[in-house]
Amino acid sequence: MNDIELVSANKSFGGWQKRYRHQSKALRCDMVFGIYLPPQADQGKPLPVLYWLSGLTCNDENFSQKAGAQRLAAELGMVLVMPDTSPRGEGVPDDAAGAYDFGLGAGFYVNATQLPWAEHYRMYDYVVDELPALIEEHFPVSDQRSISGHSMGGHGALVCALRNPGRYRSVSAFAPITHPLDCPWGHKALGNYLGNDRQSWKQWDACELIAEAEERLPLLVDQGEADNFLTEQLKPEALEAAAQAAGHPLTLRRQPGYDHSYYFIASFINDHLRHHGKALGLL
Amino acid sequence: MNDIELVSANKSFGGWQKRYRHQSKALRCDMVFGIYLPPQADQGKPLPVLYWLSGLTCNDENFSQKAGAQRLAAELGMVLVMPDTSPRGEGVPDDAAGAYDFGLGAGFYVNATQLPWAEHYRMYDYVVDELPALIEEHFPVSDQRSISGHSMGGHGALVCALRNPGRYRSVSAFAPITHPLDCPWGHKALGNYLGNDRQSWKQWDACELIAEAEERLPLLVDQGEADNFLTEQLKPEALEAAAQAAGHPLTLRRQPGYDHSYYFIASFINDHLRHHGKALGLL
Repeated sequence: MNDIELVSANKSFGGWQKRYRHQSKALRCDMVFGIYLPPQADQGKPLPVLYWLSGLTCNDENFSQKAGAQRLAAELGMVLVMPDTSPRGEGVPDDAAGAYDFGLGAGFYVNATQLPWAEHYRMYDYVVDELPALIEEHFPVSDQRSISGHSMGGHGALVCALRNPGRYRSVSAFAPITHPLDCPWGHKALGNYLGNDRQSWKQWDACELIAEAEERLPLLVDQGEADNFLTEQLKPEALEAAAQAAGHPLTLRRQPGYDHSYYFIASFINDHLRHHGKALGLL
Repeated sequence: MNDIELVSANKSFGGWQKRYRHQSKALRCDMVFGIYLPPQADQGKPLPVLYWLSGLTCNDENFSQKAGAQRLAAELGMVLVMPDTSPRGEGVPDDAAGAYDFGLGAGFYVNATQLPWAEHYRMYDYVVDELPALIEEHFPVSDQRSISGHSMGGHGALVCALRNPGRYRSVSAFAPITHPLDCPWGHKALGNYLGNDRQSWKQWDACELIAEAEERLPLLVDQGEADNFLTEQLKPEALEAAAQAAGHPLTLRRQPGYDHSYYFIASFINDHLRHHGKALGLL
């Protein structure tokens, strides 16, 4: 049994918002994750799980504190799991200048191949394999999984789903980095984590993956039209073009006036929970 | 016209979460407040306002980011106003040791009489008079007001309502400091702001005020039973006894398992918004 240690527990909408610490094998460091257990978790029947991947600079708490997702998760009987956004702790290398968009808080949900990053920065393995195995070992959950995320985490959610047919019942994203091969955040992160061979970047790019996806899982994407990062970093039009070219189902909603913040996420999180709830058999 | 300067604006549930800075006459410093304008604010009809008073260490953002109140406020057509918890800025004195429970972030919604506090620490005048006048001058709101708050802000909400018959349509509180005359937080704050004459403290104590309230506005209070501050600082049983002795209507709900955090507030904020919405004619 892989141990987990309770960090905190707050009752929330009749269920429990908890944080746990554990030793990650994939990341070779201690990690903290958040989990929301709705009231139905006490009733014995295994519940489905929505994994939420956060964006740059976030940890496991941004979503749990600001998205307001617990209200509907408690109604639906959906477990929410919120990992951190990078390996953490002493010995984990960070961007030399402490930049917000690389290193700590910016794991980009890839498996790094370049030193010094390759030893710890394996967030893809952590999110796709290690964490779900841990969750399914310790909590009253089924193996029915869905995945969503914001910005860097929206990129992560799309990549995890597109690369793993059958692993998720549904996927969605808020303001995802759709095309890291063609934006400054992507160039910096993939260049450092994976090296200069851009061919190797393609397996971490939703627009590239969508062309050859074995499973046509419908994508739900919300994008604020007043998002400061829209044009340079996020490029929803690239995802739209790739989905159209591949015949991949995509619902892209451009939301007038909304920005990149959690006020945007909170405004539409219920639509995403219902999207996942339907796929997970809760609605 | 008293100027206000926009600090930030985030679209939220079809309306706008905004922050403004202004020069406060009551507090003799610049202050920032938050306001949620629901979508109905664009339609011309003046909307009622719920004032939210936050607790120790908070500023105007804790409630707007963590309570999830905008969702129902947008449905109801209710404006939310969130002041800061103390005067701020250079020249405003703070607790000598930087304690969290006195000075900056801990104005206790009183008018201080003792030096050096009396010059700036007049949060009662700010919250009851100056801020509503400013809001009613600049925004499409009516003079229909309600008030709520958390912990120190719950104390503030009860005191503001009990002292001002006719000024608020309804009042509620989460985990309020009910009886500052009889708890360590109250002794420290009132002793410093008001001096050692405990007779002068009574006008800032809900349990004292309730005995002579001219208006029997029903009180709605939620209190978590797993709140770390319950026994020593909050004392809901004192409020219950005072209300019973005075024949004052009180609905005190003890919520098993809930703590002092915003997870508790988020879980029950909709009940409070509906309580106020009914009194404000929105339901």
